[in-house]
Amino acid sequence: MSVQIEIICVGNELLIGKTLNTNAQWLARRATSLGTAVNRITVVGDDVDEIAKAIREALGRKPRFIITTGGLGPTFDDKTLEGIAKALNRQLELNSKALQMVKEKYEAYAKAGRLDSAELTPPRIKMAKLPEGAEPLPNPVGTAPGVQIKIGNTDIIALPGVPSEMEAIFDGSVAALLKKEAGDAVFFETSIYADNIMESTLAPLIDVVMHDNPYVYIKSHPRGEERKPHIEIHLSTTAKDSKTAKDRIGKAIIQLSELIKGKGGKVKTF
Amino acid sequence: MSVQIEIICVGNELLIGKTLNTNAQWLARRATSLGTAVNRITVVGDDVDEIAKAIREALGRKPRFIITTGGLGPTFDDKTLEGIAKALNRQLELNSKALQMVKEKYEAYAKAGRLDSAELTPPRIKMAKLPEGAEPLPNPVGTAPGVQIKIGNTDIIALPGVPSEMEAIFDGSVAALLKKEAGDAVFFETSIYADNIMESTLAPLIDVVMHDNPYVYIKSHPRGEERKPHIEIHLSTTAKDSKTAKDRIGKAIIQLSELIKGKGGKVKTF
Repeated sequence: MSVQIEIICVGNELLIGKTLNTNAQWLARRATSLGTAVNRITVVGDDVDEIAKAIREALGRKPRFIITTGGLGPTFDDKTLEGIAKALNRQLELNSKALQMVKEKYEAYAKAGRLDSAELTPPRIKMAKLPEGAEPLPNPVGTAPGVQIKIGNTDIIALPGVPSEMEAIFDGSVAALLKKEAGDAVFFETSIYADNIMESTLAPLIDVVMHDNPYVYIKSHPRGEERKPHIEIHLSTTAKDSKTAKDRIGKAIIQLSELIKGKGGKVKTF
Repeated sequence: MSVQIEIICVGNELLIGKTLNTNAQWLARRATSLGTAVNRITVVGDDVDEIAKAIREALGRKPRFIITTGGLGPTFDDKTLEGIAKALNRQLELNSKALQMVKEKYEAYAKAGRLDSAELTPPRIKMAKLPEGAEPLPNPVGTAPGVQIKIGNTDIIALPGVPSEMEAIFDGSVAALLKKEAGDAVFFETSIYADNIMESTLAPLIDVVMHDNPYVYIKSHPRGEERKPHIEIHLSTTAKDSKTAKDRIGKAIIQLSELIKGKGGKVKTF
């Protein structure tokens, strides 16, 4: 059983289609490559009740980690921590470690001549108000700290929505937590391509190979034009070590290639 | 109260980060521009129970439309219709209209020399097995029909995951349904840009303007380098007609620009 992850992305800009959700893909890819498994991604707006509901529902599914992105900044509509606090029936309280992180950032900005004053105004202090029991995670490239809260066997980790900040906090503080839980588990994936065969002809062949290779996940993605079928066949597995993973995928590719050729199809590696 | 929409995207490729979820953005943008409001996007894997749970949870929130993408094709792991049927406690049954649509596609392909036989093999027939009570929606550019099912006051609409097919069915059969429900409601959005001001200084100014303009949603997005703050300020509203929407946004921009200039910031339109 792999280590389960849920991702919750917060932001009206995602719900109106203004912003493409590259954060979800980045996190999903990194979590998967670390040997953990993302089983749900949820996008909600900048609304305390919507955020709280999504957090409560995710906690109910008992993943090992819930990672949120967005809504940690200084503005009125940065509501993720308020939503998490509401979901947990906790208060927001000024966290002294977080306040120190925010303070040092503004002092550095002021020193560099980027702003008139390092004064800790209410919007700046807001970023250091965390749910009771939370720990801040250092933000190497921006002002709002990440946040970690343990609830039973689940760690809620809140990251900013600005991609460079999200990525920096993930790499600095979160990746190691996931890796530790995943242990030696590795994810391995590759694709082969089939020509001269329709997806509906290919489908039962994939069924046979998935049945014979129960730990290998195979998915076909039509890539061709209407008049010239070209199908990407993506094979992936999460295994206890790299050799096991590659052996599994290799065995599945050999079997599938033979079946495709038997139906008159061509197999390519690009 | 705007017309509420939920989007559910089905596909392991989204959960492992192999595929960027451009479908969710496309649908969110189109639904928003038609005057409806997306309030949640959920991504689940190719798993009947996960799909059924997501559908049941969405139905519980009583949106006017639930739009799914992905998992309608001929392969073993195209499980969306099975998941919807399970959520509704209905059976999958061969739908004669859908079968006719699939049959005509394969006959046309065979005639065009794209495949040996138009035979309706089990994987091809699978695409015409819909939940009881469902109606197929024509697919102008691929084989799997879209699907529409009315449950109380909610329409569930299932679209394929291949972007060109999803978009063609949406434009051909779904956009008009959304537009009809939205009536004359329009969504209007624009952005201005602020330089020489930190996001934490801007935050309370946005609060004032949102308070004075309750139907205008304003969100700041830091775009600059660390050493040179450049903030996109996105303003949007959904209103009963275009003039009302533009008047609202114009009034908010004038007020906000004056406040930003008062703090020494510069306002640009690019």
